[in-house]
Amino acid sequence: MSLNPQRTVAELKELRALTADENGAQRVAWTDTWLRAREWFAAKVKELPVEQHRDAAGNHWVTLAGASEKALLIGGHLDSVPNGGWLDGALDLLAGLEVLRRIASGFGGRPPVTVRLVDWADEEGARFGRSVLGSSAFAGTHSIAADRGRTDRDGVKLEDALRRCGVEIDQFPEARKERKNAAAYIELHIEQGPVLERMGLPLGVVLGTKGVERHIITFHGQEAHAGSTPMNARRDALAAAAKLALEIRSIAGKHEEAVCTMGSVKTFPGIATAVVGRCEATLDQRDLDAGVLAQMYREAQEASRRFAAEENCTVEWTRLWNIEPVPFHKDLLELCEQAVRETSGAAHRLPSGPLHDAAEVARAGIPSVMMFVQSLKGISHNKIEDTREEHLEMAVVALDRLASKTMEWILTQR
Amino acid sequence: MSLNPQRTVAELKELRALTADENGAQRVAWTDTWLRAREWFAAKVKELPVEQHRDAAGNHWVTLAGASEKALLIGGHLDSVPNGGWLDGALDLLAGLEVLRRIASGFGGRPPVTVRLVDWADEEGARFGRSVLGSSAFAGTHSIAADRGRTDRDGVKLEDALRRCGVEIDQFPEARKERKNAAAYIELHIEQGPVLERMGLPLGVVLGTKGVERHIITFHGQEAHAGSTPMNARRDALAAAAKLALEIRSIAGKHEEAVCTMGSVKTFPGIATAVVGRCEATLDQRDLDAGVLAQMYREAQEASRRFAAEENCTVEWTRLWNIEPVPFHKDLLELCEQAVRETSGAAHRLPSGPLHDAAEVARAGIPSVMMFVQSLKGISHNKIEDTREEHLEMAVVALDRLASKTMEWILTQR
Repeated sequence: MSLNPQRTVAELKELRALTADENGAQRVAWTDTWLRAREWFAAKVKELPVEQHRDAAGNHWVTLAGASEKALLIGGHLDSVPNGGWLDGALDLLAGLEVLRRIASGFGGRPPVTVRLVDWADEEGARFGRSVLGSSAFAGTHSIAADRGRTDRDGVKLEDALRRCGVEIDQFPEARKERKNAAAYIELHIEQGPVLERMGLPLGVVLGTKGVERHIITFHGQEAHAGSTPMNARRDALAAAAKLALEIRSIAGKHEEAVCTMGSVKTFPGIATAVVGRCEATLDQRDLDAGVLAQMYREAQEASRRFAAEENCTVEWTRLWNIEPVPFHKDLLELCEQAVRETSGAAHRLPSGPLHDAAEVARAGIPSVMMFVQSLKGISHNKIEDTREEHLEMAVVALDRLASKTMEWILTQR
Repeated sequence: MSLNPQRTVAELKELRALTADENGAQRVAWTDTWLRAREWFAAKVKELPVEQHRDAAGNHWVTLAGASEKALLIGGHLDSVPNGGWLDGALDLLAGLEVLRRIASGFGGRPPVTVRLVDWADEEGARFGRSVLGSSAFAGTHSIAADRGRTDRDGVKLEDALRRCGVEIDQFPEARKERKNAAAYIELHIEQGPVLERMGLPLGVVLGTKGVERHIITFHGQEAHAGSTPMNARRDALAAAAKLALEIRSIAGKHEEAVCTMGSVKTFPGIATAVVGRCEATLDQRDLDAGVLAQMYREAQEASRRFAAEENCTVEWTRLWNIEPVPFHKDLLELCEQAVRETSGAAHRLPSGPLHDAAEVARAGIPSVMMFVQSLKGISHNKIEDTREEHLEMAVVALDRLASKTMEWILTQR
């Protein structure tokens, strides 16, 4: 049986019909719709000569035994955000399924290395605010104590929602067993950004996932009457924040791929007739280079203090979240570039702004790489998320090529 | 009986004990506490040889008949904002009461002109969002159709709240009768701003009330992923608003007394991980000169369009409210300056940012002027609102001088 990329597109549409409504995909992890998607997937897998099981964190493993126990892992995730798109996560897994079918039908039924397809549980963290949950259990980077008490908007506890799906959070450490013999990890994903579309390229090689520094910055000034307070007597907290909102663009602009975003500004008292006494702004900074990230963070802090002083305000920073950059494996980047170039004629290397399961796998020390396929208008996490079908098919072909190259590479490792 | 400014301070404290709690003054118009304050005031007035009545809008008139029917009006308001200060409005009325006592005890019981003290109903508009309600009925600038359906936060209708206090909104036009023979209007008020304190002056002459242009400005960009959207591919609505937040300071800065305030900024979707797709900001612009106000409004519009274009966004303006500037009467400004100078040795002329009942009276064509007394730290509409007692006493003396000068001036008018 040869690779059939059209079948992947057809299966994506089948899944969409099964799990989307007029607002988009509804495969939120630990919900009935997600479980239905997983049953649908398990039934597809049953036709193959594979072993399948769920691990202690709910990740679904499909194993095609090979001549060597060393395993190539191919990953994806069926879960989506609420009102999500048809491709985010599902493309990765269904393209991997097609690659697995091709491998299973060749090599006289026994490929040179073991190949394992994994459907990670709860990549999005959409319901409980904890992303890459299943892959963090695999990687041993999970945080059970902090996560077990998380609740969804209806007050349901994370641990109870997992239990309902047959997963005990206390058993998470057991998921690390799946790392045994893992020799490499590859993952295809839609870009979720506009870079490849702007360059006119169907496919890209992902350098790694950017590190993130995410903070709330609060400027304190003095609330005052908008009518009776002269301009030169004001301590306007919004003015300090506005200066920072503009300055972060210079801070990011010194580095090619770096981004800085002020996504939320809140003003207090926040009425038309009062000078802003307090302003809370979020700052999200990302880069693939830890040194660049640290420099941007430092520069933003310095700028905020300078602007606070200029406006006769004070400033305080509160960290919301941070994660270090995760660069992908040098050899696999080269293989990915070959696969992309052979498929589409050109290859561009770019970092991933969003976090992915591949980063957790890489943090566990397993050589990893990701491939991106173009996103139309760079839009994701939305029902209008889309990619041209010809590009989806090219992505399946390129992932298949990357799988073959990586299997060969695994055999060359000591 | 000679003027007793200490009595005014004592009466202010008496009123505070009667109508304030641990959070400040609670004399919100059309509430029981406000009615209690008005009863207390009516009882004080009863000791004087005056006629008193409520007009059709609930304004309380106290009339001391004089040799001429031409009347000097002295105004104030007992109503406060919730959790307000002890001086805003009440000082005006109680200082006026003391001046009325002094006049009533002189001139052999018959002053050369009639003197009328008025307690305006609902200057603050704190409960229904419609300020200077009573004085607008007097001035004929009321807006019954728009106001009758207003509701408070409990859903009580304005017209029902007024009826409970014996006021029928349909009768508002009758309040214009009180304008008969009105020859001049004077009003004392706390500054509610920091200007006099910064200049070290107890008292000031108010040039008029500033005109106001108040708008919501909405910038539309494109919501985008904070991690995957390159800096140069963004349409950041917050960036356009931030530029405007800074630019309005240059726009106001060209004019000595002008102010421009961005008091509220709202970001959408307003999350740390998304570039701001839509940003709503308020802009409040004020000046005493209608030409300056129009110029500032035009410049802000032009700037907003320029910044929207620079950020690849669009912009729309929605007017929230506007009012023209109301300059006070030239002759009365001169008399007020004399009174202030004779009392405190120096006089400074300044516009009022906040609106006052005096502006409504002036709009009715009655020569009007206001006097300010210093506010500590420029803070008002707050329980910490305060003024030094020696300054309060000077203000009573200066208002009395202004009353005498204005009575003489009235007699010189045709």
